[in-house]
Amino acid sequence: MKIKATLVTIGDELLIGQIVDTNSAFIAQQLNKIGIEPEEILSVQDKMNHIIEAFERGVSKSDVIIVTGGLGPTKDDKTKAALCQFLNCELVREEKIIENIVRLFTERGYTRELNHLNQDQALIPKKSTFIQNRYGTAPCLWTNIEDKIIINLPGVPFEMKGLMRDEIIPRLQKQFDTEVIVHRDILVSGIPESDLAILVDEWENNLPDFIHLAYLPNRTSIDLRFSASGTDEIFLNNEIQKQINQFKSIAGKFLISEYSGKVQQVLGDILKQKGLTISTAESCTGGNIATLITSVSGSSAYYFGTVVSYATSVKTSVLGVNQHDIDEFTVVSEQVAEQMAKGVRKQLNTKLSVSTTGVAGPNKGEDGKEVGQVWISVTDGERTLNKNYFYPYLDREDFIKIVSNNALNQVITFVKNNY
Amino acid sequence: MKIKATLVTIGDELLIGQIVDTNSAFIAQQLNKIGIEPEEILSVQDKMNHIIEAFERGVSKSDVIIVTGGLGPTKDDKTKAALCQFLNCELVREEKIIENIVRLFTERGYTRELNHLNQDQALIPKKSTFIQNRYGTAPCLWTNIEDKIIINLPGVPFEMKGLMRDEIIPRLQKQFDTEVIVHRDILVSGIPESDLAILVDEWENNLPDFIHLAYLPNRTSIDLRFSASGTDEIFLNNEIQKQINQFKSIAGKFLISEYSGKVQQVLGDILKQKGLTISTAESCTGGNIATLITSVSGSSAYYFGTVVSYATSVKTSVLGVNQHDIDEFTVVSEQVAEQMAKGVRKQLNTKLSVSTTGVAGPNKGEDGKEVGQVWISVTDGERTLNKNYFYPYLDREDFIKIVSNNALNQVITFVKNNY
Repeated sequence: MKIKATLVTIGDELLIGQIVDTNSAFIAQQLNKIGIEPEEILSVQDKMNHIIEAFERGVSKSDVIIVTGGLGPTKDDKTKAALCQFLNCELVREEKIIENIVRLFTERGYTRELNHLNQDQALIPKKSTFIQNRYGTAPCLWTNIEDKIIINLPGVPFEMKGLMRDEIIPRLQKQFDTEVIVHRDILVSGIPESDLAILVDEWENNLPDFIHLAYLPNRTSIDLRFSASGTDEIFLNNEIQKQINQFKSIAGKFLISEYSGKVQQVLGDILKQKGLTISTAESCTGGNIATLITSVSGSSAYYFGTVVSYATSVKTSVLGVNQHDIDEFTVVSEQVAEQMAKGVRKQLNTKLSVSTTGVAGPNKGEDGKEVGQVWISVTDGERTLNKNYFYPYLDREDFIKIVSNNALNQVITFVKNNY
Repeated sequence: MKIKATLVTIGDELLIGQIVDTNSAFIAQQLNKIGIEPEEILSVQDKMNHIIEAFERGVSKSDVIIVTGGLGPTKDDKTKAALCQFLNCELVREEKIIENIVRLFTERGYTRELNHLNQDQALIPKKSTFIQNRYGTAPCLWTNIEDKIIINLPGVPFEMKGLMRDEIIPRLQKQFDTEVIVHRDILVSGIPESDLAILVDEWENNLPDFIHLAYLPNRTSIDLRFSASGTDEIFLNNEIQKQINQFKSIAGKFLISEYSGKVQQVLGDILKQKGLTISTAESCTGGNIATLITSVSGSSAYYFGTVVSYATSVKTSVLGVNQHDIDEFTVVSEQVAEQMAKGVRKQLNTKLSVSTTGVAGPNKGEDGKEVGQVWISVTDGERTLNKNYFYPYLDREDFIKIVSNNALNQVITFVKNNY
């Protein structure tokens, strides 16, 4: 049975752009794993009528409506009142919620009595049942409306995640006999998106109806995603593998990995496979390459660490870059990039290393280098691959993302060519 | 005049949680700056009927509908077809779009002729006008529907951002005589959210109608946001300042900053004010503290860099941590945290330094330390502040975020107490 979900996130902070909605992506991933398909995400302000209308819309379209936010104790939290009005019922007090709050306060070392706002967190709509939230003071609410379910979760990410994992996913799995949804990503590089689409056009047109293909291009590679849903997971995975095999016979030379669309995962796989270790020396990427590499579980097997040399003095003192070369060529130069890579490799004692030095902006570099200029260097001590790129127009955030991604791509290329 | 916006983001990758929607937050911020209020964000799949329904909903509710995604050249891009159907018109060819694609291809060094997918990017709905996209091949579309506007932008963040900044914001500003929207954040720490709400209850109840207060709590501090809209920006800012002054007389001892709600910004302000410099030594936070600090423009004035010692060998070789202490106390210990902080301070030659060592999970530490255990150490060479925290239940991502935030908070406390 196909089960559809609507995700609703509540909070003015989302609508003014103060906060990026990361909750929805997490919930969507979890639902996909148990075969529930989110078909819409709706973010609304902390206003009664908007929240009520979101409930109405969700119930009219989907089987499951998962709502986050607005359950806290302060005046800007309006979700419970809106739910009462939508359900046309009053609030009732659940003593067990008080017990949970007392336990949490004790754990956190608060010695005072519960105040009336804490007490009010035990009030829930009469037509809802509550699920204890061991991570925080706001209970989770579960409301059946005929054959639909509204689930209210706190907006604090770690509370929401804990409740999804421990409580909501198991209950939904029990309740519904869902289909299986399978996703598989592969990584392609060295060909523009439109050229790839034409190269594989006939194959793509002949994909079975139950397999859906999506292109996720970025500046340096394309993540191709295969999605399929049905009743037999093994069959779906086999069918996707067959299609990937056909893809390989047509466009294999552009395929970087058939197991992941994420550069950091692909890099990890290849380093583990070859038994190589790596360190990084970052300037303009400010630690983002380290963040990417360490986001892969098990990365400590091949990743030793990074030196972020934000100040030029760190380039010379820790990484051993020659001050004379900095003066002659500037910090954003092939010479400095290469010495940074070689320096960190030696200092951290790894087989490989990669470095970045560039101008992320918004202002020009110390030596007048243009915003968007960057050098990337990969080395194993003997061989070195130095590359220069120019990314004008990118803001600081995108520059860091794209340079980081590109640096990891360069390491993959280096390893593929030399090991 | 109050102008309302609906933001629509299109793409299956959002609905399966593969990608976090960062575009909406950026667009919302930009619109707020020119007095346009986003009242809803809607993310839908790459399906014709869903996209058309999103256009209908947006036009029925808001003055401006900003849509991102689905403009690319591949089969999964359906936005233009959906817009044609919604507008009940055909596609027409705009030669000037071809010129832009040719220019981009030349810049990128592609030598081949445009293929038919590239050619098709010059087709736009007859009822729309196009705005040239100097950052990519997909044009931006501007469609007037009576007194409403639908704006279609590419989903690639740097293209979307460039077009918003250069083209959309100036045009919207010209078109509408909007109100001014003002936001101001302050940072509070050392008091639970519900206690703060009770402490300031009377003051909050007496806030003028045009000032709205929001609580954004996290594990270690509360960001309090004041929002106001009206016609006179100076008046609004003055009124918010008056309210902050009253807040200070009631809850001043919990106020960390009256100028920002972001810990990294507050840290930067205080370091610049006191003329102090800082370096970091990160283990479990994997470079995230560096990423936070360097996200503040101008941080190079006080931030020298970080050593991420993911491998234990880096702790001893680069940071000078005593191997004997690692053996005796484990890597997640007060002794190691303090030596990491002292080591990086010396190596990078800064006045202050802060270190983290802990177990981010999902697996236990090498020495059997529990997931969630962490030590943070702040030092200026003479004085040292060491703190131990235990965050079980947090997943890797939240653990890193909360520990990073807490480390910056510790530095602020250290500086406030000692300088």
